[in-house]
Amino acid sequence: MPVGLKFPTSILPINGIRLSTGCAGLYAEKRRDLTLIELAEGSNVAAVFTRNLFCAAPVHIAKQHLASCKPRYCLINAGNANAGTGDQGLRHSINTCDALAHMTKCNKAEVLPFSTGVIGEKLPFEKINSLLPSLVDNLAAENWLDAAKSIMTTDTIPKAVSKKISLGDTAVNITGIAKGAGMIRPNMATMLAFIATDTKISKTLLDKILANAVNKSFNRITVDGDTSTNDACLLIATGKADNNCIEKEDSEQYLIIEKVLVQICCELAQAIIRDGEGVTKFLTIKVNSGRNSAECLAVAYKIAESLLVKTAFTASDPNWGRILAAIGNADIDDLNVDKVNVFLDNVCIFESGQRAVGYTEDAGKKIMQKDEITLTVMLARGKCKEAIWTTDLSHEYITINAEYRT
Amino acid sequence: MPVGLKFPTSILPINGIRLSTGCAGLYAEKRRDLTLIELAEGSNVAAVFTRNLFCAAPVHIAKQHLASCKPRYCLINAGNANAGTGDQGLRHSINTCDALAHMTKCNKAEVLPFSTGVIGEKLPFEKINSLLPSLVDNLAAENWLDAAKSIMTTDTIPKAVSKKISLGDTAVNITGIAKGAGMIRPNMATMLAFIATDTKISKTLLDKILANAVNKSFNRITVDGDTSTNDACLLIATGKADNNCIEKEDSEQYLIIEKVLVQICCELAQAIIRDGEGVTKFLTIKVNSGRNSAECLAVAYKIAESLLVKTAFTASDPNWGRILAAIGNADIDDLNVDKVNVFLDNVCIFESGQRAVGYTEDAGKKIMQKDEITLTVMLARGKCKEAIWTTDLSHEYITINAEYRT
Repeated sequence: MPVGLKFPTSILPINGIRLSTGCAGLYAEKRRDLTLIELAEGSNVAAVFTRNLFCAAPVHIAKQHLASCKPRYCLINAGNANAGTGDQGLRHSINTCDALAHMTKCNKAEVLPFSTGVIGEKLPFEKINSLLPSLVDNLAAENWLDAAKSIMTTDTIPKAVSKKISLGDTAVNITGIAKGAGMIRPNMATMLAFIATDTKISKTLLDKILANAVNKSFNRITVDGDTSTNDACLLIATGKADNNCIEKEDSEQYLIIEKVLVQICCELAQAIIRDGEGVTKFLTIKVNSGRNSAECLAVAYKIAESLLVKTAFTASDPNWGRILAAIGNADIDDLNVDKVNVFLDNVCIFESGQRAVGYTEDAGKKIMQKDEITLTVMLARGKCKEAIWTTDLSHEYITINAEYRT
Repeated sequence: MPVGLKFPTSILPINGIRLSTGCAGLYAEKRRDLTLIELAEGSNVAAVFTRNLFCAAPVHIAKQHLASCKPRYCLINAGNANAGTGDQGLRHSINTCDALAHMTKCNKAEVLPFSTGVIGEKLPFEKINSLLPSLVDNLAAENWLDAAKSIMTTDTIPKAVSKKISLGDTAVNITGIAKGAGMIRPNMATMLAFIATDTKISKTLLDKILANAVNKSFNRITVDGDTSTNDACLLIATGKADNNCIEKEDSEQYLIIEKVLVQICCELAQAIIRDGEGVTKFLTIKVNSGRNSAECLAVAYKIAESLLVKTAFTASDPNWGRILAAIGNADIDDLNVDKVNVFLDNVCIFESGQRAVGYTEDAGKKIMQKDEITLTVMLARGKCKEAIWTTDLSHEYITINAEYRT
């Protein structure tokens, strides 16, 4: 059951974007599994991809295609990652781009392929190709929710965020969708996420915004510490709105659009955690007063990925010794452990090298029983701070991941 | 249920070592929880300790005491880690050393304290001290098995290994005990382990042997990636055997004793994994043909600590895509993934960037159903190799660690 995450409503269409979805039969049960996104000619696109060395065939192809021209289509399948599939996987991915290009009279390099699902299985490209004509026929601006559903794998709820903002006299729309829900520890990239706006903005600034937004959002989450082979995040600007094209970093309009895009990425990233596999708690891990970002993140991830910390949260057990052990494993040079403070929400549980004076087990338990908890660690040695979001680790996670693939 | 691990039998006493155990009431249920080990005067002792920054009070004290004189006693309690307990924890640990020193007319620095159990709780040193007289009265050479039981926490079976070997004309004995079973990823140190021999050997060589043996054994295991605050491993040589004192590294006797000590440490380390929390499979992860030890270990630990790989083993599911994803996350510079080979036992499952020709799901399943499996990764870029041992991740692990502390 997702934590604090509602079914998305009122998703705004984006001028210059049309979408369609269908069932190509990539799952045993009947469900939408194929998504087509059409981008207006001239759209600027920024993208980041997984740094997993075994990155999937579509990741290789999408990177190549992006480098050569402006994309017109994104073709996304769930149910099969097309990773660990060698040269054959590359050929199959290119084959689907070719088929779509032929049908829509564009260049195959204008098609970006994306896949998510089981690793190591042959991509059933014939099934995908035979659904393409109906996808092309059914493209429509209002199909965002269907697309959010269609890219899901073990997600239990679709993830979409939409905002309308004013840039001077002009209103622009931004809509983003994303999927999780396991193998989540994006590394300089993200899970599948597609964010589009009709804002006119230069490609250079779009790249800059995406890098910054991803770093504050998708690169700050972990479910299980496993970086996927297929992560990708696209930020599309169709330029169909009437604003004057944003080309300067110090312009007011840049600051406005950047802020809202970071916010949307954070909401989508948090939605992935709120619906993480087996989640029963949504946890924010803050590490403050560190010397630099790297050490704050090292401590935060050690806590977030400690099985013992995660299971203590599942049990609503304020077993804070496990938190200390995790902090102590983060390889921080000459950390003075006697100065470290640890808080559960606003309650100090550890200070001066021992249980905080006045802290009671009951106070700890009360907080642990909530389904959204903030854990804060003060390193007391600098001015840097970081925050990441994670899940607990429940029986349900094991059940989901120990189930046979079929 | 432990995997391939039998209740220890025929444990050899060590001339110069006496032990006793008792119930100090550190657990809610009645069980042995306090252990005293007496070392003959003049025994050489080598030791390694956890590198967790939040290391426990007894770890600090034991290190100090070891640096000042040759130890006569080890006092070990289960049920309470005396970690995260600040100055008070240090005082309580010293208090128990004082009490024992007074009773046995030795110096308190000749007592080494060890604790294992819940972190962050006050050490009930009065309970410990009041049991000391009966422990001192009951010291006996044949109490090794009781000691192995008495240091257990979530272990389901005591762990002890014993060997008799010949050094020239002299027979010497070696006996070691250890405990696990969660928060296991020793970092340049080990879980609690006590190994003793009556061999005459210099302190310098004993230190050298322990460092080497630990690196090949306790530093090659992981259950959950969490390094404990209390890990410690002691190697004791009482010198009561009749061999000529071993003082040269190139002597035949040194090579014999070193080899058998490495072997004993490996058996104890593997015993910890075989009885790891919730274990259903004993897994050996080999990484071969790497450029150096560090990269082989990085890949091995990424695989061993991937929740997705672990749960696939629990399910006996040859979902090898998860293994690739883990390898790809190990941050290996310019790894050519198309040259990487992956084997389950002797069956090649992945080569040339894709599923191995001739590999069948049935062949994979057959191996995955075994309870002892070797996973081998060939990096194809060097001559270095490493092996580590780990568990799978079952519902039982979650149950054990999500149970409330009391």
